[in-house]
Amino acid sequence: MKGVVLSLAPHVQIVDITHDIPPQDIAAATFALETAIPHFPPGCIHVAIVDPGVGTDRAGLIIETAHGLLVGPDNGIFTTLIPWEGQFRAFRLDQPRFWRPEVSRTFHGRDIFAPVAGHLARGVAPAEMGSPVTQIVRLTWPLPEYGASEVRGSVIHVDRFGNLITNLRPQDLPGLTHLTEFIVRETSTVGLQTHYQAGNGLLALVGSSGRIELAVPGGNAARTLGVGVGTTVRVRSTADAKPPKQAHEAERQGGTL
Amino acid sequence: MKGVVLSLAPHVQIVDITHDIPPQDIAAATFALETAIPHFPPGCIHVAIVDPGVGTDRAGLIIETAHGLLVGPDNGIFTTLIPWEGQFRAFRLDQPRFWRPEVSRTFHGRDIFAPVAGHLARGVAPAEMGSPVTQIVRLTWPLPEYGASEVRGSVIHVDRFGNLITNLRPQDLPGLTHLTEFIVRETSTVGLQTHYQAGNGLLALVGSSGRIELAVPGGNAARTLGVGVGTTVRVRSTADAKPPKQAHEAERQGGTL
Amino acid sequence: MKGVVLSLAPHVQIVDITHDIPPQDIAAATFALETAIPHFPPGCIHVAIVDPGVGTDRAGLIIETAHGLLVGPDNGIFTTLIPWEGQFRAFRLDQPRFWRPEVSRTFHGRDIFAPVAGHLARGVAPAEMGSPVTQIVRLTWPLPEYGASEVRGSVIHVDRFGNLITNLRPQDLPGLTHLTEFIVRETSTVGLQTHYQAGNGLLALVGSSGRIELAVPGGNAARTLGVGVGTTVRVRSTADAKPPKQAHEAERQGGTL
Repeated sequence: MKGVVLSLAPHVQIVDITHDIPPQDIAAATFALETAIPHFPPGCIHVAIVDPGVGTDRAGLIIETAHGLLVGPDNGIFTTLIPWEGQFRAFRLDQPRFWRPEVSRTFHGRDIFAPVAGHLARGVAPAEMGSPVTQIVRLTWPLPEYGASEVRGSVIHVDRFGNLITNLRPQDLPGLTHLTEFIVRETSTVGLQTHYQAGNGLLALVGSSGRIELAVPGGNAARTLGVGVGTTVRVRSTADAKPPKQAHEAERQGGTL
Repeated sequence: MKGVVLSLAPHVQIVDITHDIPPQDIAAATFALETAIPHFPPGCIHVAIVDPGVGTDRAGLIIETAHGLLVGPDNGIFTTLIPWEGQFRAFRLDQPRFWRPEVSRTFHGRDIFAPVAGHLARGVAPAEMGSPVTQIVRLTWPLPEYGASEVRGSVIHVDRFGNLITNLRPQDLPGLTHLTEFIVRETSTVGLQTHYQAGNGLLALVGSSGRIELAVPGGNAARTLGVGVGTTVRVRSTADAKPPKQAHEAERQGGTL
Repeated sequence: MKGVVLSLAPHVQIVDITHDIPPQDIAAATFALETAIPHFPPGCIHVAIVDPGVGTDRAGLIIETAHGLLVGPDNGIFTTLIPWEGQFRAFRLDQPRFWRPEVSRTFHGRDIFAPVAGHLARGVAPAEMGSPVTQIVRLTWPLPEYGASEVRGSVIHVDRFGNLITNLRPQDLPGLTHLTEFIVRETSTVGLQTHYQAGNGLLALVGSSGRIELAVPGGNAARTLGVGVGTTVRVRSTADAKPPKQAHEAERQGGTL
């Protein structure tokens, strides 16, 4: 893909964002793009290919956003970078003259998306390479569930440090105080800390992506707790909380249950 | 190596192709280079160092090809990029004045090949840095074996998705039809599909490198089948095929054997 | 981080050195920087972030050295690139107007160090962005211990080939000869070899970093011996050496002990 881009636009600088997206994991790519792309200069062209549907009739897109031009499959990979209707313009790629002459059905990254990115870098307008569309595929993060006594969130990403990034942001938790308890399986932590070295065992904090994450500083929360993407994170006030099973063994022995 | 190149030629753009070649695996590097380098602009300088023989008397080379200038050890790493005699020019590196003043015997990438690439980028001619040679080391992929009732190929590469890339191309299988069966161990698939999501279990298709590969879409064929580089892939017409052991258990129980 | 740098200084070329530092492993980063940075042109800006103390009161630094400008946390990550007092100038970052407007307490790489690097690339002087300091945190490699009959070193790094890089350099071993024995656990090798393919089993050589390393060519010394960072390496003359337990079993049975 880099060679194809440079063949068309030798002057561009290619910047790698990550080499560590697990195969076929569109959600992991979405999270990586959400954390990285808003920090790039607005004129950049961002190409992202996690594309299990390559060769099917899934569309290819150029999307114009405030974050620059996005190029990739229409499978939701750019979901969190795209605002609501009216605030972006999308084009379904349908002009093969901007693609490689022979297009495989297994590697559109090389055969369609890289050439399209190269032509964008040369100044070709998106509208020349595709037809406007208003409907695009969006992924949905699971939404927090609000119960009578607790909020149930879930882990949407595990980073390379093993930190558990959740679908919860502080604004999702109106009653959030230093007494709020975060429970994963049978382990819990109370209150939000400000930084990783604020504690030793499991702690909760607002990570650099703006989302609440659970971490074991100097360790690996995912491995320590044996959890991953999809795991439920329960949030409740410690005022009316029943102690979780293991973390408060001493209390339970004392008969409070 | 990047620092050494930039010290000599600060204007070049360095592009990483891969960081994932297993230690000492020249064949894996050869495959990565075969799939990437032909897509770069012809004026590029390609440096590749997988070099278990560093410090022995194996030569270092500059090779002029239609794909640009190749720089690295003479151990076959560029095999599939080099056409037959008369269509390339190779130079054995023997002019230490173009190397780092102190050359280690454990890291010629930094001490010889990176400086040579830097000088090439500055415009020094290959012939100034080495003497012409006509014989270079070539790796040989195993060739398909043609038997009375089947063709036997083998897996030459496993990519990061676990797809099994073989030494077979469609032109190697003259009788290839939608009834052709591909057998790995005791699992098989019939016919070539056009893209990954054309099936659920094991399928065969022509991959983006032009070679026939076996894949488990959304899964990992290498792990699922417990196979890897060197595994035999048998190809035969289903007309005269005996069913493999597990895939056709029902038939066999029905007494067709 | 790359996006933040390019937003401030679109003209810079960003070069990745490594993506493989284990989480929180400052010593591994120090070793990677020691081997790479001296080979870059002197005008470069080097940013390195392995930062378990992010969000605490650990300082952030710009350090001016002969190797260029170094930017990162004051946790010893640049230790081996910094000569003794008087030969470098360091500035503790304390001018938030050069940082991102909102500074997280979990990702100073993006919020402080990348913007500072971007401003350096635009020509802002280090002294504008921080106050001079003379004391900075330094890591100490364990020093070789000199005993009556042997020198005890230790493994300070394991590279991706499994080679064991030690804190010993030839100049640390005044009596070094072709009879000197290097012992790891119960395996040993005699003499320094010049290159990897000089032997089959465990061998010792001076690696490209100038340090003595132990390698199993074509294999992985760390895995073969079951050792890692911190393992003791004993060095002694074979003249007065007692044979290690397994390597000289035959001799011992013959009664030489």
